[in-house]
Amino acid sequence: MDSTAGSTSAAEQAAMRRALALAATPGVPMVADTRRVGCVLLDAEGRTVAEGHHRGPGTPHAEAAALARAGEAARGATAVVTLEPCHHTGRTGPCTEALVAAGVRRVVFAETDANPVAAGGRARLEAAGIEVEAGLLVDEAAALAAVYRRAQQQQRPYVTWKLAATLDGRSAAADGTSRWISGRASRRDAHRLRAACDTMLVGTGTVLEDDPRLTVRDEQDRPAPVQPLRAVMGLRDLPVGARVLDDEADTVHLRTRDPRSALAELWVRDRQRVLLEGGPTLAAAFLADGLVDEIVCYVAPVLLGAGRAAVGDLGIPTISRALRPRVTDVTVLPGLDGEQPDVRLTLDPRET
Amino acid sequence: MDSTAGSTSAAEQAAMRRALALAATPGVPMVADTRRVGCVLLDAEGRTVAEGHHRGPGTPHAEAAALARAGEAARGATAVVTLEPCHHTGRTGPCTEALVAAGVRRVVFAETDANPVAAGGRARLEAAGIEVEAGLLVDEAAALAAVYRRAQQQQRPYVTWKLAATLDGRSAAADGTSRWISGRASRRDAHRLRAACDTMLVGTGTVLEDDPRLTVRDEQDRPAPVQPLRAVMGLRDLPVGARVLDDEADTVHLRTRDPRSALAELWVRDRQRVLLEGGPTLAAAFLADGLVDEIVCYVAPVLLGAGRAAVGDLGIPTISRALRPRVTDVTVLPGLDGEQPDVRLTLDPRET
Repeated sequence: MDSTAGSTSAAEQAAMRRALALAATPGVPMVADTRRVGCVLLDAEGRTVAEGHHRGPGTPHAEAAALARAGEAARGATAVVTLEPCHHTGRTGPCTEALVAAGVRRVVFAETDANPVAAGGRARLEAAGIEVEAGLLVDEAAALAAVYRRAQQQQRPYVTWKLAATLDGRSAAADGTSRWISGRASRRDAHRLRAACDTMLVGTGTVLEDDPRLTVRDEQDRPAPVQPLRAVMGLRDLPVGARVLDDEADTVHLRTRDPRSALAELWVRDRQRVLLEGGPTLAAAFLADGLVDEIVCYVAPVLLGAGRAAVGDLGIPTISRALRPRVTDVTVLPGLDGEQPDVRLTLDPRET
Repeated sequence: MDSTAGSTSAAEQAAMRRALALAATPGVPMVADTRRVGCVLLDAEGRTVAEGHHRGPGTPHAEAAALARAGEAARGATAVVTLEPCHHTGRTGPCTEALVAAGVRRVVFAETDANPVAAGGRARLEAAGIEVEAGLLVDEAAALAAVYRRAQQQQRPYVTWKLAATLDGRSAAADGTSRWISGRASRRDAHRLRAACDTMLVGTGTVLEDDPRLTVRDEQDRPAPVQPLRAVMGLRDLPVGARVLDDEADTVHLRTRDPRSALAELWVRDRQRVLLEGGPTLAAAFLADGLVDEIVCYVAPVLLGAGRAAVGDLGIPTISRALRPRVTDVTVLPGLDGEQPDVRLTLDPRET
């Protein structure tokens, strides 16, 4: 689904991916139609000079944050930004003027700003003699924006259900073991997905059975500097010594079994994007209540023949009532280090 | 996996697909290393003049069969053939000489003949002034040849297990309904797979529960002119009036519950390629006995949450003992008529 502008460098493309990740940084309180934006400044050799992202209403825009960090190094730089720089004076000054004043040579952005109040950035930059390239990774940027827009519309966090299943639909073997069903490529991909969410949600049952860490880790298994909130829902107490209670990230215990109440509690805590990491019962409860906005399913070419089902009972009696979410993406994740490939399906259960 | 020669026409490519289907025609008794070969003759406008395929030891080769049917119309034609024409006199005369004598202008073949006795066809044709193009769809041709070679090596039919499953590994809903889990594109694809096999095998349970027709049908639901054998295994009697007992195809009841005995009975009947179409218990029995050579799995983006599992108990207690067949192909089958896409995985359970 990538739409890559023709005249951008590999360094600019990599910088846009980083800017998108910055835009999705967890823990940023957002209201109304405030946009999440990330910005990376590159020097003439394509090296990163500074980064910035918008941290919520009243704080500097992504471009301003990056320019402030770069100082004099911004002169002659390329600004890679997920949204067209604004050209109006709101709670902060126009980003266009800040970019011009800083001596930026070139601006690459993903999405055009459709807000008529803030629009006109591109024309202003070009008038000031700055090279402008639009549309790099615009589909990814639009998808990210849609997540937060959807959260605002629904007044609850956007919910992504992530699951890894065998070809025969198992998420664990007969004895409960599940490490690993999918391959390293899928697990890395899942950590990128975790990093884009501000909350990971499981049920107390998953904590009692699997004792997961629920942290975002890099390929060397080091924890990421910013961690999503760990949320555990259910009425049972969490065992002392459970890994979710360690100090690697914040944890909240939501004492409810009702998906809607759990999401309402998270929404009050400024949570916008929840990754459902729990077991089949939790997933089934959210699905049955129509509270899943996106399904990311890693299908592993594995057969178990027995073990835990990937999803619990959905109350579907017959084939004509099957849940048939719209497929938005199918990607084969090639196996790493001689492993088999997995297939990742992304689905939208709101459109069936 | 297609390897398409650079200088072949669309008509030649279509003719090679047809020649491969002819080579796989069911019901041909084969022994030892006899090759299955198909041939299509095209006129200068790319229209089919005649077809032929090798029907077993002592019968004419595919090229000879097609040339005999074409008669004078073979003059100036292009012969599209799945194997390099032989250049030796065995039980039949050399195909090279037959092609030269018939006035064929051009020969397109898939696989080079590795048999030293029969080799040299290409050089002989070129010496006679015939244009030769090699390698069109060679991967498909080689895969087809490997199936029959494997059957000979194992002295039992090559077994393909076909299954359609939801993302949560169900092959039927809670009430037993299963039409349809996968989309039309997958079902068409599965009929092509059926057509390439000489036998479809189910258990008596499937006949009693689902009453399948087990015939190869085209897109208009018309039966194909040549039908694979329908084999039903198990000790229970088949109900009078069962659809597998109609006269659309031959049917055999193998009164055994042992996969190895069933395959032995089919081998004696000259069956080389069996499609396992039965339920989860039958599939599990064949898998557990190491009697599945290939798995073709259609994964549908559907959730059921309950219902029949795609495969029965395999006696796998823990994740480290999971069956991890080698993935040989992953293909997304785009949905037809607004349906969702399915994903087809082809796997080799002999290499894990």
